[in-house]
Order: sequence, then structure tokens, then C-alpha cells
Amino acid sequence: MTDPLTAPAGIQALLDAARFDADGLIPCIAQQHDSGEVLMMAWMNRDSLAETLATGRVTYWSRSRQALWRKGETSGQVQELREMRLDCDGDTLLALVHQHGVACHTGRRSCFYRAPRGDALAELTKPEADPRALYGAAS
Amino acid sequence: MTDPLTAPAGIQALLDAARFDADGLIPCIAQQHDSGEVLMMAWMNRDSLAETLATGRVTYWSRSRQALWRKGETSGQVQELREMRLDCDGDTLLALVHQHGVACHTGRRSCFYRAPRGDALAELTKPEADPRALYGAAS
Repeated sequence: MTDPLTAPAGIQALLDAARFDADGLIPCIAQQHDSGEVLMMAWMNRDSLAETLATGRVTYWSRSRQALWRKGETSGQVQELREMRLDCDGDTLLALVHQHGVACHTGRRSCFYRAPRGDALAELTKPEADPRALYGAAS
Repeated sequence: MTDPLTAPAGIQALLDAARFDADGLIPCIAQQHDSGEVLMMAWMNRDSLAETLATGRVTYWSRSRQALWRKGETSGQVQELREMRLDCDGDTLLALVHQHGVACHTGRRSCFYRAPRGDALAELTKPEADPRALYGAAS
């Protein structure tokens, strides 16, 4: 079986079909491949998408730092790509991943941990990891 | 138990915490609440988010039509909101929904049906409904 992550023509087909916005970016949803948990949403440019597909490690584009963001490079909480899907009109990606540790910089598994409960916005989950341990004392 | 979808203060807390971009929009991922299937991603403005929370029916903002997009109004393929979650930095929503029928305008359950397979971009699923029946002969 051909590995869909590494066949160059398959990668090129996805890069050609993806529609980047006026800033050259496309949103990418990361979902844990087996549990279905939606972990986070971040942005990719063409280079980060190409690197993700070529390496099998998810790399985003950090809009705040204006730099490639190799997920887990600092924290160790990497995302192994299992499959990259594109939506019907080509302007959103869905990355099925294996998340090592936690996806959220707060130490939670998923970034989507807030929801209305009664009169307030509640936190649905607690951190599983200490952000200071993940990112060092400086953060 | 207070219904988190209809408590006005809870709705207001979510509206206050959501960070809309320079165009007044925030991306919203729709996920089938029980199966975990990621169905689609679309955009909301403040009015569509408020309407979604108040009515329990998901309403997006159509960037192409520049109008409220009450999902399923034409096709009948409505999304019942079960819970609206906000991510850590407040700039992405995750709507847990019950999808009636199909989410994708192509008649597929999910919009994310394309992925690299070997040398090409493959279609992973087939339409479950005829788009002409969903949207009428004009579309």
C-alpha cells in the first residue's frame, strides 16, 4: 500500500486543491484520530502544510509570531499526522492526528474546554499537565 | 437544571468571551455530538452566534452572501445545538450538534471527504442525498 503521507503526487494534489485565504492561510482542525476528540484549530500556510505532509508531524503557521510552528517543538506535545482531509470547497483542513500528551497550552487535552453552564462560562476540564513544566518557567 | 442554551447570562458570558476577527467573524466547527464526526466548519458573526444560542438551531454567517445562514433553512438539513464550546484563546467555536441528514452541500454527511491516497486526492465517501433534491433544480 502506498503511504498517503509520503506519496509526492498525492501531497501535490492536496496542495493544489487547498484554497489559501488573502493572507495565504487555511484553517486546520486537529482531531484525535481514534477518540474523535476535537483538540484545537490553528492555521497553516502552504509551507507548513507541505512540511506537515512530508514529515508526518503537524506544523502550523503562528500568526502571532509570523513563523512556522512545529507543534510540540518546545513542549514535546507533538501531533503525529494520520490523515489530512480537505473539505468540499477546499478552504478548511481536518488533520486526524495522534496527540502526544495535551494539545492546549493551558495543559488541557483539548483547547475547547469552556461552555455556558447556567449563568456563566464554565471550565469543563482541568489541566492534565503543568504549563510551566511544558514551556519552562519563562512562560 | 438550568438549560445552558437558554440562560441569558450564560449566553452573554459566551458572547463576551468570544473574540471576533477584524471582519467581525469567528470560525465555528460543527461536530456530531455522539459520534464525534467533524461535519463542517463555517463562520459566525455576533448576531448569528446569539441567534444560535437563543434558538438552539445553528445559524452561520454566509461570507459569500453576506447574510445570516440558517443552516437547513432551504435543505431541511438543520443542526440542533447541544452545546457551544469556546477555545482557550476565545477565537474558535466548537458546536456539538445533532445533524439532521447531511451537513455537506454535495449530499455527503461531512464536508471533509477528500484526502490524499497514493498519487491523487481521493473521495472517501459518496453522497447520501441528491443535492438537487436538497436544494431544488436551480442549484
